[in-house]
Amino acid sequence: MSKTMIEDLPHLRLNLLTGERILVSPHRSKRPWQGQVEKLSNETRPAYDPACYLCPDNTRADGSQNPQYTDSFVFVNDFSALLSDTEEAVMDEEQLLVAETARGICKVIAFTPRHDLTLAEMSVAEITKVVGVWKREFVELSKTEWINYIQIFENKGAIMGCSNPHPHGQIWAVNALPEELKKEDNRQREYFEKHRRSLLSAYLQVELKKQERILIDNPHFVVLVPFWAAWPFETMIVSKRHIQDISQFTEEEEAALAACLQELCIRYDNIFSTSFPYSAGMHQAPVNSGPQEHWHWHMHFYPPLLRSATVKKFMVGYEMLANPQRDITAEKAAEIIRNQSTTHYKQQHD
Amino acid sequence: MSKTMIEDLPHLRLNLLTGERILVSPHRSKRPWQGQVEKLSNETRPAYDPACYLCPDNTRADGSQNPQYTDSFVFVNDFSALLSDTEEAVMDEEQLLVAETARGICKVIAFTPRHDLTLAEMSVAEITKVVGVWKREFVELSKTEWINYIQIFENKGAIMGCSNPHPHGQIWAVNALPEELKKEDNRQREYFEKHRRSLLSAYLQVELKKQERILIDNPHFVVLVPFWAAWPFETMIVSKRHIQDISQFTEEEEAALAACLQELCIRYDNIFSTSFPYSAGMHQAPVNSGPQEHWHWHMHFYPPLLRSATVKKFMVGYEMLANPQRDITAEKAAEIIRNQSTTHYKQQHD
Ligand SMILES: O=P(O)(O)O[C@H]1O[C@H](CO)[C@@H](O)[C@H](O)[C@H]1O
Ligand SMILES: O=P(O)(O)O[C@H]1O[C@H](CO)[C@@H](O)[C@H](O)[C@H]1O
Repeated sequence: MSKTMIEDLPHLRLNLLTGERILVSPHRSKRPWQGQVEKLSNETRPAYDPACYLCPDNTRADGSQNPQYTDSFVFVNDFSALLSDTEEAVMDEEQLLVAETARGICKVIAFTPRHDLTLAEMSVAEITKVVGVWKREFVELSKTEWINYIQIFENKGAIMGCSNPHPHGQIWAVNALPEELKKEDNRQREYFEKHRRSLLSAYLQVELKKQERILIDNPHFVVLVPFWAAWPFETMIVSKRHIQDISQFTEEEEAALAACLQELCIRYDNIFSTSFPYSAGMHQAPVNSGPQEHWHWHMHFYPPLLRSATVKKFMVGYEMLANPQRDITAEKAAEIIRNQSTTHYKQQHD
Repeated sequence: MSKTMIEDLPHLRLNLLTGERILVSPHRSKRPWQGQVEKLSNETRPAYDPACYLCPDNTRADGSQNPQYTDSFVFVNDFSALLSDTEEAVMDEEQLLVAETARGICKVIAFTPRHDLTLAEMSVAEITKVVGVWKREFVELSKTEWINYIQIFENKGAIMGCSNPHPHGQIWAVNALPEELKKEDNRQREYFEKHRRSLLSAYLQVELKKQERILIDNPHFVVLVPFWAAWPFETMIVSKRHIQDISQFTEEEEAALAACLQELCIRYDNIFSTSFPYSAGMHQAPVNSGPQEHWHWHMHFYPPLLRSATVKKFMVGYEMLANPQRDITAEKAAEIIRNQSTTHYKQQHD
């Protein structure tokens, strides 16, 4: 049976990075929707909001005042989920109640002083500066020797739990490898030990040959819809060089990633002519943990929207209890994203 | 360091059933919320809705007419994610693009003809009939020899992707063990092989001794907030007998589970005086798969609400990319649920 046929039938696809499978139900995409519709938040924001705790010069929750910053601004989260001074403690009752304390540093990065922008509306030069801040923060945080993993991410849009529309991301640097990373670490190590080549290098090669799920292909990065995407418009950015983390980026790579981010976010916004919500973040090698040559830098985008600016995919019931599931295929999603203009809909004048 | 101290510090807890850890940030529960607020859906529904595809006598998407049913009503989902006649096919390109077709039967169960009820507002006798239907369906479906796992679940509330408020659940019976179940299968097998005793029997014993997270303890079932709960008000129902699946329930157990479900759902509704949304479902032994003595029947409740009827926990960013995280502890959540009246708020007249 040919691949084309499998794509039309209900099937399971293997996620190479986690080893878990996702259920695809292509025949079901014509299901009518009678469920929850989200609020449309196409409000126009002012360039400066006196009530925003991220805008320059404003006062934050802890009483401190933001600087009059011009590019980006980084500070420790006033409500950090992890603290740097938590003392070590373990609990183990008959191996049934098992816990241990966790340490970390949680930072917030305002991408720009402009309250009204998003990555899709910033220039490549401005985004390149953000990439530079991520790199600097990564290098700085990895100098703290109890830190073992640094998660750089962004929650964008109220629907993704983002509590402030000012363009910003977060960094949580933690003392123990988080669960998703353990899976990716194992899978990449296994592959590398067997093939002396990174899993994502091999995967990129197949994808570049097929050209079915590729969105952007520049000299330094590939942006694609992974074969095993779970979210309707999930995408992944993979570096062409087999490098472990952002500290190894050349200046050219920093600018090339910025260009990818801008183009991807513009296309996303254009799908439903809305500021496209997502959670996105880099996966990179653990730090202070010995050799990590099996690791290959990449970045995931998990956007929740499915049918329109207001109808999202619900990862509930069967998905929570049993197995992630999607209706439209990765190939169909790639086609939709590829068909979008690279000019932002707000700039399109006809 | 005592357990009481660990509970006040950021820490990681082991989920015995999956082997994965969840991050707890107790110090963070006082964080102010400026993010998304859900629509409050405290509409009063009519006992019969002529536009509902689950109400008796109405016409469904495929043109068929519902019977004039008096208890529950079961039918094959008109938009099934899995189909029973999908032919077998596999795809494997260099072990990098790996997929195979999946087969299944997806059913819908209307719990009652009454459009306006929920499990919290049904009588124990009525819920007992629903338990009976689940059991019958489980037994029937497991006679189909290519079926290996039967997921019984309910998505309740628009916020949980439920597209019709008529009280109903679903059953997806599938040909391959889903991902969450693989994890629970492995962990329970490991424990059983080592201790000749089910993991959840041992766990229940510790919990009953501690009495810190117990919500209901009747002769047949325990309802508790699991030590490793990820969702703010997550709970679990565990059978006291070490049985593998619902087909082994005695009549007394069927009624006892119904009583637990009613009491739990009433307490849930009372927390925020709202119809409490959740995804819930049973985890039980695979079928047609050989001996399963390591399995222990249980049921998970994953409710999204956190602070009020309209503010939920967002499992986004760090949670999707790295590790599930919660703020209030399992112990605090248990205390809140325990403090609720067992009389439904709509019935409370003062
Ligand atoms: O079949 P329903 O209730 O319309 O759909 C709901 O439950 C399914 C199973 O959990 C999910 O896949 C859908 O995303 C959700 O909207
Ligand atoms: O810190 P924030 O942006 O207020 O909070 C948001 O991101 C966090 C990290 O993904 C999540 O734990 C929260 O649930 C979410 O609301």
